[in-house]
Amino acid sequence: MDILIKNGIVITMDKERRILKDFSISITDGIIEEIKPEIKGEADFVIDASRKIVMPGFVNTHTHLAMSLFRGVADDLPLMRWLQEEIWPMEKKLEANHVYAGALLGCLEMIKTGTTCFNDMYFYMDEVARSIEESGMRGVISYAMFDFGDESKADDILKEGGKSIKKYNVAGSRIKAVLGPHAPYTCSEKLLVKTAEMAKKHNTLIHIHVAETKEEVETSKKEKGKTPFEYLDNIGFLRDNVLASHSTWVTEKEIKILKKRNVKVAHNPTSNMKIGCGVAPIPEYIENGVLVSLGTDGAASNNSLDMFQEMKICALLHKINKRDASVVPAEKVLEFATINGARALGLDNEIGSVEVGKKADVILVDLDRPNLTPLTNPVSHLVYSARGCDVDTVIIDGKIVMEDRRVRTIDQPQVLNFAMEQARDLYQKTAKEDKLF
Amino acid sequence: MDILIKNGIVITMDKERRILKDFSISITDGIIEEIKPEIKGEADFVIDASRKIVMPGFVNTHTHLAMSLFRGVADDLPLMRWLQEEIWPMEKKLEANHVYAGALLGCLEMIKTGTTCFNDMYFYMDEVARSIEESGMRGVISYAMFDFGDESKADDILKEGGKSIKKYNVAGSRIKAVLGPHAPYTCSEKLLVKTAEMAKKHNTLIHIHVAETKEEVETSKKEKGKTPFEYLDNIGFLRDNVLASHSTWVTEKEIKILKKRNVKVAHNPTSNMKIGCGVAPIPEYIENGVLVSLGTDGAASNNSLDMFQEMKICALLHKINKRDASVVPAEKVLEFATINGARALGLDNEIGSVEVGKKADVILVDLDRPNLTPLTNPVSHLVYSARGCDVDTVIIDGKIVMEDRRVRTIDQPQVLNFAMEQARDLYQKTAKEDKLF
Repeated sequence: MDILIKNGIVITMDKERRILKDFSISITDGIIEEIKPEIKGEADFVIDASRKIVMPGFVNTHTHLAMSLFRGVADDLPLMRWLQEEIWPMEKKLEANHVYAGALLGCLEMIKTGTTCFNDMYFYMDEVARSIEESGMRGVISYAMFDFGDESKADDILKEGGKSIKKYNVAGSRIKAVLGPHAPYTCSEKLLVKTAEMAKKHNTLIHIHVAETKEEVETSKKEKGKTPFEYLDNIGFLRDNVLASHSTWVTEKEIKILKKRNVKVAHNPTSNMKIGCGVAPIPEYIENGVLVSLGTDGAASNNSLDMFQEMKICALLHKINKRDASVVPAEKVLEFATINGARALGLDNEIGSVEVGKKADVILVDLDRPNLTPLTNPVSHLVYSARGCDVDTVIIDGKIVMEDRRVRTIDQPQVLNFAMEQARDLYQKTAKEDKLF
Repeated sequence: MDILIKNGIVITMDKERRILKDFSISITDGIIEEIKPEIKGEADFVIDASRKIVMPGFVNTHTHLAMSLFRGVADDLPLMRWLQEEIWPMEKKLEANHVYAGALLGCLEMIKTGTTCFNDMYFYMDEVARSIEESGMRGVISYAMFDFGDESKADDILKEGGKSIKKYNVAGSRIKAVLGPHAPYTCSEKLLVKTAEMAKKHNTLIHIHVAETKEEVETSKKEKGKTPFEYLDNIGFLRDNVLASHSTWVTEKEIKILKKRNVKVAHNPTSNMKIGCGVAPIPEYIENGVLVSLGTDGAASNNSLDMFQEMKICALLHKINKRDASVVPAEKVLEFATINGARALGLDNEIGSVEVGKKADVILVDLDRPNLTPLTNPVSHLVYSARGCDVDTVIIDGKIVMEDRRVRTIDQPQVLNFAMEQARDLYQKTAKEDKLF
């Protein structure tokens, strides 16, 4: 065997949600081979997991990695001002190297906080793919498609969006390419319909922003006579391959549509709170059997990519919103961040839980910390007390990507310097140099 | 000089809120002596602060340190069930050693996340004082006084509460003892009035919980014909020495009373959210000139003591509550957590900012982290992107308490073991052993 993890507390996230005490795990050829109280045989690498939690790596189902370069440039602004005055002008000047630097930076932050798989929509996706390859992460990528209602552009854009599907969807790869029409308000009906057709043909996921703000819904009702999900359903867009991020402003009727079409939700509590745009009806999604997963969104609107923080904020938001401490309990939130993330990305046969036969995307959380003492409820500790920096080991696809908090695959000082250099270049090109301290 | 901090980014939190680039700081006999671009002379200890933020340590204005032993035992429960079924039965069995262990654990967690001063209300306060002495922290302590309306007990309880005032209030001490009547609904009018008199006589602070839940307000209106702050004002309790934690459910009229009496607020966003009890009107407090500070509350209802997390959650909560990204901006939140905390505790002549002549309660935040790259707005980075574990050095009262994340004053493994042992003892005595994993 390649790796033997000995005597850990294993939070499996399997169907029975078993938590195993003093169990060992063997990993061979990237796959979890055995989970037992004791495992015999020689391993190339042995990890002592006593006083450690062993769990599936987080699946971050909605992010824009390269926006890490915009971290902190424009906080405390409402969404439209934030987009129009700050983000879009910078995105217009974006070049491949900026995206490469931002994506590497994002991969580094994610590895260091226990995320092993992410779902990214942006531009220059070859660069994001490169950062996945180099960092050892697992990632789902989509080129952000917009035609702003101009149907004459739809074919070209879809062609661009479809390119990576052929290029990256190779068996055994850690990269999966999918389709990313940005949102119903930035894509023409033609682009949306053709995207749905292409997704069906290639059996691929569609990653889209829906119903993020109240204004979006109001505009949709005014222009299309329908709310965003009603509109998407009406044009035949909604199927079980659709992962809708945000999904904040929805009606009861739309929740039923999501359930009927088996659409998945990527919930982004921190971003929604920071931009002040709204609270997604997560308790209602749960009640109606709509699958909820968790994402950080980009670092420009979060401003971090730490899924531990996202879990805590998720639980807190819904408790205060409903004035009820019992809604969205820790167990549910941990599901959102692991197995539900895998299901949302159509990867639950491969990842999202620690089970024999699954790919070894596994993290270890060190319990020898004041914030995790005494050890009462491990699941509660993960959601309410742990932080990304409590992760000490990260294994992705059976490879040790981080050991004792040292990332093996990419060089931290080099990645940070490159990110700063590329941020400076981009800010100079946008006449926003004063944004750098 | 004792300590020389060289070439840091200094977030002063002085009156002009100056941020100084490449400045150095000298510390002698516990006091900040100079803040200049260059400082000459020999120092016993030199810290290279290039690529680091130098800032005042956090002041956590409302906590119950020893409740760290209850971390994770009873999550996702509403306040009254949480108190009646879980917390109170354990508190009944509480002994001195439990409090000592929990307080040491809390001090360790706070030091490791950059808090240098806290305001604690609980029982066995000699043990909390001991943990302050040993850990090197600065702390304000109060014995939690309750008589549950039985005025015959008021004198004895006040005597107990007043003991530590004589014992600990010695010039130059890091410990300050104040009065802690628990809440208007757990104290008789006699106890409250006599507390106010004693506080006046000894020129000391009063730390009290007010208007935490809607139920508390409803009961107050029913039983006393007044809302909690109206009632307290009516009995002459409210003065500029009152620090009211939570202050969640208040009317416009009460906000005016708080301003008129110069009462200070300790805001506890995470605890309020986790218990689902309500959103304090922080934008309204700011608008009306009521001083707002920040506290984590106890680890049983948070479940951590990390003030970085508290700052982020504070900003997010009010943005979503008002559906406005611009309310409670990063600069304000950083004030809550530093200089306003010092003002709330009557310590702003001594701590809360990095200024010449103030006591050296200073922390260093390492910027060489993926989550803090690129460096755009340092204040935004502190509030939205940094975590407690990004703090690498903690100086309290001019002594280096943590260096390169290693706490010098108390031994981490020993503190964690002692906390686990005492938690086990307490849980056994309460027949709650099954709560430990």
